[in-house]
Amino acid sequence: MPQCNGTTVPKYWYNIQADLPFTLDPPLHPVTRQPVTAEEMEALFAPELVAQEFNRDREIDIPEVVQDLYQLWRPTPLRRAKRLEQKLDYGGEIYYKYEGTSPVGSHKLNTALAQVYYNVQAGTQRLATETGAGQWGSALALAGYLLGLPIEVFMVRVSAEQKPERLRLIRAFGAKVQASPSASTAFGRQIREASPDCPGSLGIAISEALEVTRAGNGTKYALGSVLNHVLMHQTVIGLEAKQALADLDRFPDVVIACHGGGSNFGGITFPFLAEKFRGQSVRVIAAEPASCPSLTAGRYEYDTGDTAGFTPLLKMYTLGRDFIPPVLHAGGLRYHGASPIVSALLHHGWIEAQTVEEDEARQAARLFMASEGIVPAPESAHAIACALREIYTAQLAGKQETILFCLSGHGLLDLSFYD
Amino acid sequence: MPQCNGTTVPKYWYNIQADLPFTLDPPLHPVTRQPVTAEEMEALFAPELVAQEFNRDREIDIPEVVQDLYQLWRPTPLRRAKRLEQKLDYGGEIYYKYEGTSPVGSHKLNTALAQVYYNVQAGTQRLATETGAGQWGSALALAGYLLGLPIEVFMVRVSAEQKPERLRLIRAFGAKVQASPSASTAFGRQIREASPDCPGSLGIAISEALEVTRAGNGTKYALGSVLNHVLMHQTVIGLEAKQALADLDRFPDVVIACHGGGSNFGGITFPFLAEKFRGQSVRVIAAEPASCPSLTAGRYEYDTGDTAGFTPLLKMYTLGRDFIPPVLHAGGLRYHGASPIVSALLHHGWIEAQTVEEDEARQAARLFMASEGIVPAPESAHAIACALREIYTAQLAGKQETILFCLSGHGLLDLSFYD
Repeated sequence: MPQCNGTTVPKYWYNIQADLPFTLDPPLHPVTRQPVTAEEMEALFAPELVAQEFNRDREIDIPEVVQDLYQLWRPTPLRRAKRLEQKLDYGGEIYYKYEGTSPVGSHKLNTALAQVYYNVQAGTQRLATETGAGQWGSALALAGYLLGLPIEVFMVRVSAEQKPERLRLIRAFGAKVQASPSASTAFGRQIREASPDCPGSLGIAISEALEVTRAGNGTKYALGSVLNHVLMHQTVIGLEAKQALADLDRFPDVVIACHGGGSNFGGITFPFLAEKFRGQSVRVIAAEPASCPSLTAGRYEYDTGDTAGFTPLLKMYTLGRDFIPPVLHAGGLRYHGASPIVSALLHHGWIEAQTVEEDEARQAARLFMASEGIVPAPESAHAIACALREIYTAQLAGKQETILFCLSGHGLLDLSFYD
Repeated sequence: MPQCNGTTVPKYWYNIQADLPFTLDPPLHPVTRQPVTAEEMEALFAPELVAQEFNRDREIDIPEVVQDLYQLWRPTPLRRAKRLEQKLDYGGEIYYKYEGTSPVGSHKLNTALAQVYYNVQAGTQRLATETGAGQWGSALALAGYLLGLPIEVFMVRVSAEQKPERLRLIRAFGAKVQASPSASTAFGRQIREASPDCPGSLGIAISEALEVTRAGNGTKYALGSVLNHVLMHQTVIGLEAKQALADLDRFPDVVIACHGGGSNFGGITFPFLAEKFRGQSVRVIAAEPASCPSLTAGRYEYDTGDTAGFTPLLKMYTLGRDFIPPVLHAGGLRYHGASPIVSALLHHGWIEAQTVEEDEARQAARLFMASEGIVPAPESAHAIACALREIYTAQLAGKQETILFCLSGHGLLDLSFYD
C-alpha cells in the first residue's frame, strides 16, 4: 500500500447538521437564556463562521484560497498499520489517518486556515484565541502568518511550562503568546490573585481571549474546537479517509478518535456517521482522559464554554465550567465541556465514549511507535489505547474487524510525555 | 498538483560509482597509508555495507524488509512551491522534495534503516554512532527500536545543549545518548582535560563512537553521512524526485541541496547527475555554511574522517581533522570534511559549491515558511538560500528555470534557530 492514498483534497466540508436524526438544542445567551442570535454571535466571530454554525446544507464549499492552502500538505496519509497487525497477530485490518504531516504537526490547521480566511474577508484586524497543549495556538499562528492576520494566543500555563517549544513555535510564526491565567486581562488577574498556583485551564484561557475580543479594536475570537463550524472544517479528515478506504474497497467496523473539545473526533467520524444515519453498521468511539471525563462522567446540560461565563450557554456534557482538570500531558484534552453535536450524538446513542488512563495511553503509544515509527501526540495516544482495546476484544471474539483511528498529531513537541 | 506524487517507493538504490567518469581515490589505512581492505573495514562495519562501499553495480536491490519500512512514510512529497513563486513573481517553477515527513523529521532514516538491517543480519549486538544536531542519532535510534538493535549515540555537546528535545527523542526510542566529548571514552576525557569548554564536533564524536566500537563486544559502528554506501541509501530521495518530475514532464535546470557530510546532497543529486554524465544539462549546487566551508575553502587531500584519526584516510575536501567549527544552529553541517564522492565530483567540475551565512539561511527559511508553511530545519535553510539566489539570478537574466531543492527536514526540534 502506498504511503498516500487519494490524490485530491475534498472541495467541500461535510455538514452533519443536514443529517442529524434529532434536533440540536440551540445555544443560549448567558444572561437572557434566550437562543443567541446570529447578530449577537457576530460580536465574537466572523459573519460567515456564524452562518456556518447554523447552516443546514449538507455540503459547504471550501473557498479556493483555503483549498490551495490545504494542498500544502493534504491529502494526509491513510495508512494500514501492518507491522502493528503482525505484532499483535491480528487477523483484521488496522488503519490510521495521520494528521501529523501538517506543518504544525496536527489536524488543527484544517480549521485555522478557514477561520483566518473568513476573518480576513470580513476585515478583522486581529484574532484572539486560547490554546491547551499549543497545537491550536501554533496552527492559528501559522494560518495568520500565511494569510497576514495578527494572532494573540493565551496558552494554558501548565502546558506553556511543560512545552516551551510550542511557545517558540507560536512566536516563530510572529504571533503574540502568553501563559494563562495572565496578568494582561482582568479575569486572568482575578484568578491569579485567588489562586497563585493555578495551572490554568482551557476554560480560563478562553475567558481571557474573549475579554480581549470584547474590548473591540477590530479583534475577533477564534475557537479551536467545540463549535459546529470548527468540527465541520475538520471533516476533510473523514472525507479523505472514507474515500481512501473506498478505493481499497473497505468500510470500517469501528472508527475511533480522542476527544477533548471534539474537533478531530468530529472531523474523522462525521462522514462515517453520515452512513450510519442511513443504516450502515459502524461503531464510533470517543476516547477521553480518565482525569477529565466530560463525556463519561459529565452532566448533559447547558453550561458556558469558558470559565468566566462569557460564551453562549451550550447544551453539552460538562464537568462544570469551574472544573480545573488535573495536570496531564495531553493538554489538548483538558476541557471541562464537549462539542454540543458530539454530546447530542452520545446522548442519543449514536456514539460511545471510553476513558483512558494516561499510563495506558503512554503504553499504547509506545507499542504503536515501536511498530509504525511515528511518535504519537499524547492526545492521539488515547485513541490508540482504545483501538488496542477493540483489537483485543475482536480477537477474543474471533472477529476480524476493520478498525480506523485518527492519529491527530505527532508528539515531537510533546516528548516529556515519554520521559 | 496533489500533495503526493508517485505512489511507489524505489526497489533499488542508485549506485553512482557505476557511472563516475573518473576514478575514485581509494580510502587508505591511517597507519600504513595502503588502500584499506574489506576485511579491515569489517572491523567497523557490517560486511554487506563494506561490500556496498566498493560495489560498482548501477542498481543495488533494497531488501524487502527495508522496502516495507520505507513504506511507513515514503514516497515523500515532491511539491511545487507555488505560493513562493507567486510571492517572488517568478516565471519559472520551484519544486522541493520534502524529507521532513519521516517519523524523525529528516532524511536520515533512509540509511539508518538499511544500516541497522544489515547489522542485524550480520549478528551485530550493538551499534555506536555520532550525531551533530541529533537528526542522525534519532534516526538510528528509531531504526534500532524498530528492528531490535541497541544503539549508543555520542551527540556533539553544543547541539545536546541547544537541542535537549533531540536527546529526549533519542531516549524515547530506547537508545543510550551522551554529550560529546564525554567522560566515558579515553579520547573524550583527553579532549575535556585539554579544553574543558570544548563545544564538541562531529570529528570528536565519531572518534568516541569508534573507540567504543574498537573495544569489541559485538559492537559495530554506523556513520550517518560521508561514506559511499550511506549516500547510496539516500538516493531514494532523488529517484523519487526524478520520477515525480518525469510524471509532470519536467527535468530540473538546477538541483540544490545543503552539504554537511554529503548525505542529503548525494541523495537528491546523484540520480540527476546520472543524466548529466550522459549529456543532459543540469547544474548541481551544494550549499554549505560560511563558518564551516569544507567544499569551498578546504584542501582536497587525504584526511581522516574523525578527530582522533581512527577512520581510514579519505580523499576529500577538508578543513583539517582538528578543525572545531564555530557554534551554529545547523549542527548537521558542522563537519570538517566531506563525502569523497562529492569531493571528487566538485574537483572534476561536475558540481558547484556555495557558502551561505547563517543569517541569510534564516531569512530564506522565514520567507519559505511564510509562503509554504513548513518550518525548515536550519540545515535545509541553507539550500533554500541558494535556491533563492538562483531564482534572483534567473529573474535578472530573464530566464524561467525549473529549480529543485531538497528540504531535508523540518525544524520543529530546532526552533531556537528562529528566536
